[in-house]
Amino acid sequence: MRHRWRIRPMIEALPAVVPFVGPEAQERARGKPFRARIGANECLFGPSPLAVEAMAKAGSDIWKYGDPEGYELRHAIAAHHGVSPENVVLGGGIDGLLGNVVRMFVEPGISVVTSDGAYPTFNFHVLGHGGNLVRIPYDNDREDIGALVEAAGRTNASLLYLSNPDNPMGTWWLSRDIAVLLNAMPDHCLLLLDEAYCEYAPSDTLLPFDVSDRRVLRFRTFSKAYGMAGARVGYCIGNRDLIAEFEKVRDHYGMNRTAEIGAIAALSDQAWLSETVRKTAAARRRISEIGRANGLLPLESATNFVTLDCRRGPQFAKAVMEAMLARGIFIRMPGVEPLSRCIRVSAGPAEELDLFEEALPLALVDAQQASREG
Amino acid sequence: MRHRWRIRPMIEALPAVVPFVGPEAQERARGKPFRARIGANECLFGPSPLAVEAMAKAGSDIWKYGDPEGYELRHAIAAHHGVSPENVVLGGGIDGLLGNVVRMFVEPGISVVTSDGAYPTFNFHVLGHGGNLVRIPYDNDREDIGALVEAAGRTNASLLYLSNPDNPMGTWWLSRDIAVLLNAMPDHCLLLLDEAYCEYAPSDTLLPFDVSDRRVLRFRTFSKAYGMAGARVGYCIGNRDLIAEFEKVRDHYGMNRTAEIGAIAALSDQAWLSETVRKTAAARRRISEIGRANGLLPLESATNFVTLDCRRGPQFAKAVMEAMLARGIFIRMPGVEPLSRCIRVSAGPAEELDLFEEALPLALVDAQQASREG
Repeated sequence: MRHRWRIRPMIEALPAVVPFVGPEAQERARGKPFRARIGANECLFGPSPLAVEAMAKAGSDIWKYGDPEGYELRHAIAAHHGVSPENVVLGGGIDGLLGNVVRMFVEPGISVVTSDGAYPTFNFHVLGHGGNLVRIPYDNDREDIGALVEAAGRTNASLLYLSNPDNPMGTWWLSRDIAVLLNAMPDHCLLLLDEAYCEYAPSDTLLPFDVSDRRVLRFRTFSKAYGMAGARVGYCIGNRDLIAEFEKVRDHYGMNRTAEIGAIAALSDQAWLSETVRKTAAARRRISEIGRANGLLPLESATNFVTLDCRRGPQFAKAVMEAMLARGIFIRMPGVEPLSRCIRVSAGPAEELDLFEEALPLALVDAQQASREG
Repeated sequence: MRHRWRIRPMIEALPAVVPFVGPEAQERARGKPFRARIGANECLFGPSPLAVEAMAKAGSDIWKYGDPEGYELRHAIAAHHGVSPENVVLGGGIDGLLGNVVRMFVEPGISVVTSDGAYPTFNFHVLGHGGNLVRIPYDNDREDIGALVEAAGRTNASLLYLSNPDNPMGTWWLSRDIAVLLNAMPDHCLLLLDEAYCEYAPSDTLLPFDVSDRRVLRFRTFSKAYGMAGARVGYCIGNRDLIAEFEKVRDHYGMNRTAEIGAIAALSDQAWLSETVRKTAAARRRISEIGRANGLLPLESATNFVTLDCRRGPQFAKAVMEAMLARGIFIRMPGVEPLSRCIRVSAGPAEELDLFEEALPLALVDAQQASREG
């Protein structure tokens, strides 16, 4: 019974290897849990207790589908940002929304510009739709907005992706720089501005919302500062005509009902958010100090993580990361040179950072030894 | 600032009207909640208390992303069905999984066969990928498997969709009929067998799992008998080579972490599932009796709903449904003739069915009056 499948050639040609390895897979491989989970830029300070309470209360109503319009949450978000509900679309995290917008714009022959070493999930979507991915190197550990916009013009790109603040480096541009970028955007190109980490950023990082602006879609999430990564709630704000197009491709019953209720509660607890941002800034300072004390160079960060320059090549940084993993400390590192001379450490409470502080010098010794032997 | 978007022409050409109107939108329009929510084939008997408890316990861990491999749940499902974890892929309900598989197979020029009046979300996905949707009429209120397979050959279709038991009619085929269909399937075509309602069906409805069979993918969900529609947990079982292809298109971090934990607990509580199935069968009998007492013809059902033939044209059935909605009873009806002579009522506890029983004769009077005036 050799039955042939007619998978689209474009899909069949994609690599079968999954680029996304979670800490759980690493824990299964090592046979025990990590002692500190500070690698996935999750918010270890947790969600608002109001969100936890609201979700627990909603639990027995899980037999109901969520509202396909996400009316309540969409209206709460719109009110929070001073835009209209018609300017907001919900999705399964920024990942899900990027998937939607890529499907709307990308097919074979279409160019898309991003930075080399930026968010891999975006690349996964673009390549998965057969797009031509144009990767522009970082400049001095920042996404190079001048070169990005130049490449968008040169390659006749339909989309330009930028995260501000940036992942994996933690660096950022000021709102006035983004305004310059927008004004330089080619006519035919849409800016996808990933602001996942925006709540952690200095206030002069974010442009005010102008939903008459057809040049940009802005992506936000409850996964980072709101502490709800596992809930899968993101949203996109933009011009209403473009937001309306999502209705053609999104999964209308795709949102978890309880997660939406939790997100509404989380949004209402801005005091908790401020406290999270404050704790995160303190944790960033401590991670930087620990790095410095061990001869590493912390990059200034506007996010919930610190990228530490190990001051040698990618092999060495990888050896440091692996030695940390072996010591039960889950961290990650950028995947592309020259960013890959760094390791990336998420903010967290004192307990996790104590473990990090204890393990780092030992891991550096391990890595130095490995590089002498290698 | 008239900025042009380069939306793909195929997407731009799709209708902007959203086919999915939830009961919440109807409640907002009428200005008050429904008294009985028995229209969306949800499980009013609710989820297992073990699932509710597990989800509440996991609530404060929502800051963690879910495992991108969904290892624990995938292994639990595989063990439950006696297949290997490599034969199971998770997704955001059957809706999400159908979206994945359609993306894998459908592009402009590709034909897909379904029944005229069957699951609209599947059609939404196929049309959204530019597919050529071939719709075969029901035969005697059942999906016409002979005509479906004939059409798959005739139109050179890549996919054939069948739900067994069927929504919206509640009818079903026996496993031996499905085996005949499989043996008649053209070489190039894959059967998407939507078994959302399978837990309610007589045991001779379901083929045993044979994951060496490359001709079929089987779709299951926690939305129906497990009472977790709002959680968005579905899964697909099939040949491992085909299941592996999902890795190229699925959103690896798309699953809600708490929902997965709830699904594991729900799966472990088969006693609750049996009790739900028993209560549902009793509710189906009562809906049928109420229908008969009011001159309607209940169709025999292997699902969690009963489709009631109103014995006149679609205008009359629509008037009955609207009169029920006006009386605060949320029900739905099939959208396509000749199925649209019917209304569709979901099983539920006595309280909801009492309200249904009270409202139906009044709604029939309203509808008769409307049809005399119309």
